[in-house]
Formats: sequence, C-alpha cells, structure tokens
Amino acid sequence: MRLDETAAGLFPIAVTPFAPDGAIDWASVDSMTDFYLKAGATGLTILGIMGEAPKLDLDESLEVVARVCARAKGVPVVVGVSAPGFAAMRALAQGAMTRGAAGVMIAPPNTLRTDDQIVGYFAQAVEAIGADIPWVLQDYPLTLSVVMTPSVIRRVVEAHRSCVMLKHEDWPGLEKISTLRAWSHEGAMRRVSILTGNGALFLDFEMERGADGAMTGYAFPDMLADVVRLSRAGEREAAHDLFDAHLPLIRYEQQQGVGLAVRKYVLMKRGAIASDAQRKPASALSAKAKAEVDHLLARLAKKDKRAAL
Amino acid sequence: MRLDETAAGLFPIAVTPFAPDGAIDWASVDSMTDFYLKAGATGLTILGIMGEAPKLDLDESLEVVARVCARAKGVPVVVGVSAPGFAAMRALAQGAMTRGAAGVMIAPPNTLRTDDQIVGYFAQAVEAIGADIPWVLQDYPLTLSVVMTPSVIRRVVEAHRSCVMLKHEDWPGLEKISTLRAWSHEGAMRRVSILTGNGALFLDFEMERGADGAMTGYAFPDMLADVVRLSRAGEREAAHDLFDAHLPLIRYEQQQGVGLAVRKYVLMKRGAIASDAQRKPASALSAKAKAEVDHLLARLAKKDKRAAL
Amino acid sequence: MRLDETAAGLFPIAVTPFAPDGAIDWASVDSMTDFYLKAGATGLTILGIMGEAPKLDLDESLEVVARVCARAKGVPVVVGVSAPGFAAMRALAQGAMTRGAAGVMIAPPNTLRTDDQIVGYFAQAVEAIGADIPWVLQDYPLTLSVVMTPSVIRRVVEAHRSCVMLKHEDWPGLEKISTLRAWSHEGAMRRVSILTGNGALFLDFEMERGADGAMTGYAFPDMLADVVRLSRAGEREAAHDLFDAHLPLIRYEQQQGVGLAVRKYVLMKRGAIASDAQRKPASALSAKAKAEVDHLLARLAKKDKRAAL
Amino acid sequence: MRLDETAAGLFPIAVTPFAPDGAIDWASVDSMTDFYLKAGATGLTILGIMGEAPKLDLDESLEVVARVCARAKGVPVVVGVSAPGFAAMRALAQGAMTRGAAGVMIAPPNTLRTDDQIVGYFAQAVEAIGADIPWVLQDYPLTLSVVMTPSVIRRVVEAHRSCVMLKHEDWPGLEKISTLRAWSHEGAMRRVSILTGNGALFLDFEMERGADGAMTGYAFPDMLADVVRLSRAGEREAAHDLFDAHLPLIRYEQQQGVGLAVRKYVLMKRGAIASDAQRKPASALSAKAKAEVDHLLARLAKKDKRAAL
Repeated sequence: MRLDETAAGLFPIAVTPFAPDGAIDWASVDSMTDFYLKAGATGLTILGIMGEAPKLDLDESLEVVARVCARAKGVPVVVGVSAPGFAAMRALAQGAMTRGAAGVMIAPPNTLRTDDQIVGYFAQAVEAIGADIPWVLQDYPLTLSVVMTPSVIRRVVEAHRSCVMLKHEDWPGLEKISTLRAWSHEGAMRRVSILTGNGALFLDFEMERGADGAMTGYAFPDMLADVVRLSRAGEREAAHDLFDAHLPLIRYEQQQGVGLAVRKYVLMKRGAIASDAQRKPASALSAKAKAEVDHLLARLAKKDKRAAL
Repeated sequence: MRLDETAAGLFPIAVTPFAPDGAIDWASVDSMTDFYLKAGATGLTILGIMGEAPKLDLDESLEVVARVCARAKGVPVVVGVSAPGFAAMRALAQGAMTRGAAGVMIAPPNTLRTDDQIVGYFAQAVEAIGADIPWVLQDYPLTLSVVMTPSVIRRVVEAHRSCVMLKHEDWPGLEKISTLRAWSHEGAMRRVSILTGNGALFLDFEMERGADGAMTGYAFPDMLADVVRLSRAGEREAAHDLFDAHLPLIRYEQQQGVGLAVRKYVLMKRGAIASDAQRKPASALSAKAKAEVDHLLARLAKKDKRAAL
Repeated sequence: MRLDETAAGLFPIAVTPFAPDGAIDWASVDSMTDFYLKAGATGLTILGIMGEAPKLDLDESLEVVARVCARAKGVPVVVGVSAPGFAAMRALAQGAMTRGAAGVMIAPPNTLRTDDQIVGYFAQAVEAIGADIPWVLQDYPLTLSVVMTPSVIRRVVEAHRSCVMLKHEDWPGLEKISTLRAWSHEGAMRRVSILTGNGALFLDFEMERGADGAMTGYAFPDMLADVVRLSRAGEREAAHDLFDAHLPLIRYEQQQGVGLAVRKYVLMKRGAIASDAQRKPASALSAKAKAEVDHLLARLAKKDKRAAL
Repeated sequence: MRLDETAAGLFPIAVTPFAPDGAIDWASVDSMTDFYLKAGATGLTILGIMGEAPKLDLDESLEVVARVCARAKGVPVVVGVSAPGFAAMRALAQGAMTRGAAGVMIAPPNTLRTDDQIVGYFAQAVEAIGADIPWVLQDYPLTLSVVMTPSVIRRVVEAHRSCVMLKHEDWPGLEKISTLRAWSHEGAMRRVSILTGNGALFLDFEMERGADGAMTGYAFPDMLADVVRLSRAGEREAAHDLFDAHLPLIRYEQQQGVGLAVRKYVLMKRGAIASDAQRKPASALSAKAKAEVDHLLARLAKKDKRAAL
C-alpha cells in the first residue's frame, strides 16, 4: 500500500507510548493502534513532532514502524522522517518503507528563509530518500519558523510527483487552503491531499475550505473523525455543534510544550495507553493543570458521553 | 490618576478607528471609548500592537491619547509606547502622561535573547522615560520572540518601583501566573497587577490561576468583563459557560494578521466604530472569512443575545 | 540634487557626534562632514544603523539632516529612514528631502520571511514615502535576518523606478554582486548603483565583482576612497596592498556592538569628532580593548602614515 | 586518553574527505589526519559543523571516529555529537568513546532562548550521554542563535564536572574570554580549557585575552599552531605579523556557506586530501571564487612560503 493524492479522512498523529521507566511500552503501541482504528482513523501518522521521535534512536524508530504497520493491517501508515541531515532522513525513510510504511512526512529545517531555499531543500530531500517514496509536505510555521506561500507549495508539488499530501498547519491558514484548492480546480496545480493539523483548532472551517481531513493528535480522534464525516456530508451545524463542544479542551491541549502531557493524560484515562509517561526530557502536568483537564472533561461529558471517564 | 498595582478588571486593547480614506475617525474614537466604558471597562489600553500604532505619527498618537483621556473621565488610560529607539519612546511616554494617561506599556524588542539583556533593556527604558511614569511590562513571546522566565520578570519588577503591572500573554502561561502569585504570596516578590492578553483564549483559567483581569481586545468586551466578574465572584461554572459560548469566535479572532480585521468588523457591526477600515498597510477579510464570522455570530447569538447583530 | 543610478565612489556611513552629556555636538557634526569630504567622499549617508538614529527623536533627526546637507554643499546626502511604522518613515523621509537630502535608505524589518513579504513591504514603503523620492535598498541579512535572493532584489528594482541603489551587505555576497551585474549587462535587470557595506571587510573583491563603491563607516574613509579609486583604475595589487594593511583594524572594528565604539574612538583620535561618546544606551571600550586598538593603529602606522596618531 | 581541563594548543576542526561520487575517501581520512598532526595539532576535532556530519549516518560516523582515532595515536580526538534528539546524541557519544575518542562536543539547539533553558538543556544532555564522558561546550551564537552570557557558561561548568572545555566562538567575544579567565583566577569559577573558533578571525587577540589555543579549521593549521605558540611564548609582534599575513585568506574562508568549499579547495591544493568534493547537498566555488582564492594564495606566498602551491 502506498500513500497517494486520494488520502482523506483522519490520520491521527500518534503518540509514542512509554513505560514510566522510559522503555517503549509495546503493549500500548498495540492498544493505541487499535484505539485509533476503532476511532475511525483512515490512516496513521507516527514519529511526528508530537511523537517524541527525537528521543528514539534509529533501531527503536524502525521497530515502532514495523510494529504499528503490522498491527494496522489495511490502513496506510505515514512516518515522520524530518532530520537535520539527509543521511539520517534517508536511513529512516528507506527503513520505514521496507517495514510497511505507506509514505513519509518531511518538515523543513528552521533555518530556511527564502522561497528558493525552501524549494531547494525539498529537492535535496527527494534526491536523498529517492523519488519513489510518497511523501507529505509539512507546513507548520508556528513551530518551524519557515513560511511557505501557496506559490512555494505549488513549486514543490509540481517539481515532485512523489509529494502527494500537504499537512497544513499554517496559522492563520484558511485562505491558503482556499487558494490551493482554487488552483487545483482551475488546473493550475496538481491536486494533492490536504490534511490539517494545528491540534484541530480550526478543523471546522478547514473542512469547509476544502481540506480532505485531519492529521492531528487531539485525544478524541473519534470526534475528529465525526467532524470530518459530518462536514463532508454537508451536515454543517451538526459538525460545528460537536466541534464547539470539544473546543475548550482542544484549545487547552494546543498549548505548546504542555500539550503532549495533556494529550497523553487523556489518552491514558481513555485506556488507549497504559501510562502518560514521556521519555526524558519530559514535560509534566502540575496538579492544578490535571485538575483543569479533569474539569474540562467533566464539562465536556455533559455534551459528549465519550468524555465521561 | 496614576496606574498602580491595584489595577484590576478589564482594560480593553482599543482599536484605532479610521475612515475608509485612512484619516483618523474622531467621532468613532469617542463612540468606541463610550462603548468600552459601557461594556464594563475599568481601564483602557490604547496604541497597542493591535491599535495600529506604528501607522500613526507622533502628533497623531498624542492627539489620540488626549482625545481618549478626555472622554474616559475617571478611568485610567494605558498607552503603548514600545519603540525601536528610546528617543521615540520617551517622546511618546512623556507626551502621553502630559495629556492625561495613567501609565504606559513597554514591550521588549525582538532582538533580545539573554536574561541580562532583557533586564538591561527595561532599565534603559525606565531611565529614558523617567522613573516616575507607571508602566506595564508586556510579556508576549509568541509575537515578540522574547522569552521571560518568572525570575526575569521578578528581577524587572524588583528593580523598578514604577513597574506596576504585567501584561501576561505568554503561551502557555498558566504555570507562570501561579508561580508569580505564589512568590508574591510568600513575600518573595512585590505584588503587581496581572492582566492577561492572548486574545482571551485562556481567560477562563487565567482568572482561576490568579490574574486580576483581562487586557485584550476581543470584540465582546462586555463578555470579558462578565467572565472576570463571575470568576472573581467564584461563580466558576457560569464563567466557563459564558466563556465557552464565545470561544469559537475568540479562537477565530485570535488568528495572527487576520485577527484585527475580524475584530474591527465585529466592532463595526456592534456600532462601536463607524468603519472597519484599517490604515495602510491593511489586512482584509475575504468574502468567505466574513461569511464565517457571520456564521459564528449567528451561532453565538443563540447563547448570548449580544451577538444578534 | 537627487540620488540616481550613477552614484559611485564612497558614501561613508556617518556617525552621529554627541557630547559626553548626550547632547548632539553640532560643531563635530560640521567637522565630521568636512572630514569625510576631505577624505574623498562622493556622498554621505547619515542616520544609518551605525548612526545611533533610534536615539534621536524626529526633530533632532531633521536638524541633523539640515545641518549636514547645508555643510556638504554639492555632495548628495542619503538619510536612513527605516522605521517600524510607515508613519514615522514618511515623516522622516519627506522632512529629510525638504531639508536637502538627495535620497533615503530603507531596510526591511526583521520579521519578513517570504519573497512576497519582502517585495510587498517595499511596495508599501514606496507608497508611504511617495514614488518621487529616490531610495536605497539595504540588504543586510546578518543584522536584519531578512534574506533577499537576487531575484527578489530584481523584483523590487523593476517595480520601483525610484529605487536607484542597492546597499549590499549580504555575507557572503560576492556571487550576488556578480549575478546582479550579469543581469544588468544582459538587459535582464535595470542597472542600479551598488555600494557595499559590511564594514568594508570584503571591499577588495566586491569592487572586482562590479560594485560601484563603498557605503560603510570604517574610521579611515580616506583609505576606502583610495581602494575604490585604485580598483576602478585597474591597479589591483596596489588596491589589495592598501586594503590588506588595514584589514586587521577593519576586522576589529567589524565586531557587532563594539564596532561603533571602536569607530568613534579612532575618529576622535583622528580629530574628526571631539568626543567618542555615544548617547545612552551606549557600548563602551574596556581598557584592554582600547589598548588593542592602539596596538593595531601603531602596527598600521608602519604601512600607512595616516594611522600615526 | 580522556580530554581534560588542561587541553591546549591546536585542535583543528577536521573536514570529512569525500570522493567525487560522495563516498568517504578513507585514504584521505588518513592523509588528512597525518597532515594535521604534522602541522602541530595537539588534538583533533571531527564531525563538527564544518565536518559535514549531518550527511553521515550513524555507522559512517562511527567508522570515521574509529579510523581517525586509530591513526592519531597519542593525540586526543573530540567528536561533535550535537543532535536534535538525545537518543541520537547518546548513540553517537557512547559509540565514539568506545572507539577511542577522548571527549565529545555539544552545541545547543537553535530554539533555546532563556538562561534556564540553556542550563537545562545541557543537564539533559549530560544525563543522556552519561556524566563520565568529557565534553566541550560550544558557544557559537552567530550560527546557532543561542546567546550564552558568561554567567550561564559558569552555571553549566559548575554543574557538570565532565564539562572540561569551552569552544569559544562568540563574536564579539574578547571581553567574554577576559571575564571567564578573571573568574577562574579569582576562584569564582572552575578553570576549563578555552579554545577559540570563528575561523580564527580573532585568534591573535583571543590568545592575548587568555585562550589556551585554537579549535578551528582554517586550511593552514600549521600557521594556527605557530600563532598559538608565538603568542604563548610572548612573541607578540611575530604572532601578529604571521597572523596578519594570513588574515586576507582567513577572512575569505570565513564566509558562511562558501567557507567549507574554500577550505577543502586549499586543503586539496596542499595535498591533505585528494578531492575537494562535498557530499550532497554541497556548496561549490565559482570560477571567479577559485581565481580569488588563487590570487590570495599567490599574495600570501610572498610572506609565507607554505602558501606557494
């Protein structure tokens, strides 16, 4: 199975489950995979920024890829391979494909500035991993400090047939989605899949602007799948109602640094993983923060029973 | 009237009203001031980042200060005086105080990196404007790229008696509020007022962590005043209910760049200002974006009649 | 007199002379102007980054412009007008032209990232100051963090007839000069004047790549004028010999932050200004640093008598 | 052999030799090692920023370490292990020590801002690699965007006994050396070795301020060793004379991006390596740039015969 431009729906950004001692919790890797699939995932994204990928060495990373791909039979798995050097990127990308991945995801390094630097970087990346590996272009200026105009994205997409998806998490980015979609509609740009990130903070409108789905790790992937489904079915108010109910928690989880701790805490409460431990260096929730998350869950449970934990 | 450490409640970040031709709309300056006061503002903040301050020359800036101060009788007015050079900062700060301002607000330039650079910068700023002008320390890393630890804030506060308020808009920043409040409680740091920004995206929990109120420009300042009041009165669920109803729009308005256009558009619809024009260079709302805001208002109106416009 | 594309030779970046108490030292403004002209300057640049411009308020800035223009009869004066807002930029640019300036210089703000943002910024700047004011595009990524490819520079130059000069201080930038010159030679780009900065650290080769001269403030402008003259006369080895003799001091003066203190110290020793004082906030030379500069001057004096002070 | 605080002299930043097809040129690894040792190196630094380390995968990196350590019998080898994640850093650091390295070098990631973030990062790094591996703290703000005050360096040094050396390449940084040396002299800070980088652009004065030697990769390491030796012997003018003769080329090689191409070109001409090829993505010298380097070498040869190639 290979990722292509028709990808749609929900590709959750998976966490990497650890035991409290820092070892990878393989049983939780399995249960988490099952959890995402049951939630309605049409794909999976692993070893992303929120997957604590830099804390794994290459062998561990490849073992995670193999385990998830084996478990997620029939569902495409995208593997984050961003790295400061092309040697590490190639080793991980090729190793991941061998182990069953459907494609890889590449983010630009935060030192890029000009349009040409960005376009040139992705050309080098494609040369490094090979033009036959489908890949996702990650556009995430808030964290990566690299700003890509629609024109730059088009240049990259047009230059590389193997670029099949945009992970869109520009902020604000609604107009960007509209621009890219209009170009594809007019024949001015090859159509690629657009899945959106940003912790789902704008998922309601991103879908209405033309996104094909979500690629983010909010701890209620089942809600994300529902919003994507409702929105694609044209049930606009129902989609907003569900989304709005979750927005207070989505917003809370979207805090940089703290967000992963919130996400793992809720996933643990939901039974997806056994422990909310992060491998060192780890961020942790204070007692006050945990109480705030519990409070948000209790309030949410009044509108969505899945939050009654 | 001079700003001091007891400031609390709502100090809206005021927009600067322009006519479509770019001239300052003085009638709207008045109506906007009245609007904020009627909404429950206990103070006003003008010429901030969202007040298009860099588009005004010094004479215009001082005229705005004079006009607002004259209109807002009895309510303290804080004036943003951040500038790349201390000559401009001093001219604006001293001119503002002469015209009735209660204090000024200073943000650090985005080139500062080390703790000592930050502390040193504010020492230079205080020397430039004079130690007798009360001032607000603006902590806004998302936009300014300057990261201040609680320790650095304490060093600044302890060094300058005239620093009477922290405009807190670190993100995430809940633990920072808790830390600063704990220090003041233990006597380890002089207590200053803490008002929070970030477009109110975390106002619900910021109040619970110990903030004294809000200093932000969301287009429903009356709601902000209500949330602050309810939270201080201990009516926690009522505060969250009201806040959550507005969160979809708060979130939408919080988009960098587009946010001001949204804010002015809603303020215009509410009658606070005559036009949503920005002076050049201006951001504008697309037709789709306007429709999205209208949709959000319509949905909000079901829960808060003030949004029925 | 108006700046145009034929500008060449030496346009020193002038310091702003202050008395030890921080007042502008008007006598030294005159003596400094005379010094630069006597050194062979074909133009002057004032209120640049190294001219402590942000420490002057608007009235002071305009008074400096008037004084220098009056003194420098027959020689074009370029005025730095970079500002965070277009209101301040317009006020200074138009005020400067009224007082006799030949043109202005504009640097991009350090928040710009994409090619389109850069091109758009200069379009807004030209609209703000008026399309009739000749201006210099400053390309200084090391300090400004804005990276402009040759293509972006061409887009700006082609869009604005009033852009007549590039102040080139990219580093490394030799290939950029060659590219721009080749384009002009082929008719692919309007030819503008290129003067180079970077404290003259690469002046020897910049001239050989096609620069028209120097726009920098090294404390021996007479040497800069000589190198420009020798290089244009084809006396390559003589140009390098003179340049190399000064390189140890050029390199020392090129240190960020300390550089201005070195420059003013040497200019004071040479009699160009009465005091090396900077207006606050000031950088200062330690005793060790002064001894190092004195040592460099003593060594230089063996090869260039002008350094025997 | 383990690196310790007494390290001094010259630790060249070694290039990584490649064949034109991108394969590691093992014969040149040997000849380059011999070349550095013959030039007077008292240590070697490999896999640094200028060593194209990110282009090597882990196995290749460890093979380079083993080869150089075996060849450089009796001379300590420092291995750059900077990485975006601690898993990769640990794997390389521990693998390098097993293969004979004397210590490792760690640079901070460019996302660090506050003093506490920097101190915390190195604590995490030491925990990751183990407290028994001697390491070099790299302070290189120009490239890394992380600014460390002397106080922060002291905090790191005091917290970790295994930190035995500072690679100093702050710019300007002369006062920093003086401050750190004064603190050690007064007993206010444990004395560590200070070797300086920055392409040797300030080596003359860095030695006089108290540096123990050079850690940089200028293509004439024999000259660096001479300057270090002359300076330590108190032969000040002789040190400056030799240094000044090389300064035009040092300056040319110091250009970011182009610098490595210049360095490899000269090393190839000197016979240290067989090819100046870089592994992709590579920077290359234009014909004009090569001619400029040749010109600089020809001029240098008049004063230092080692440049007659």
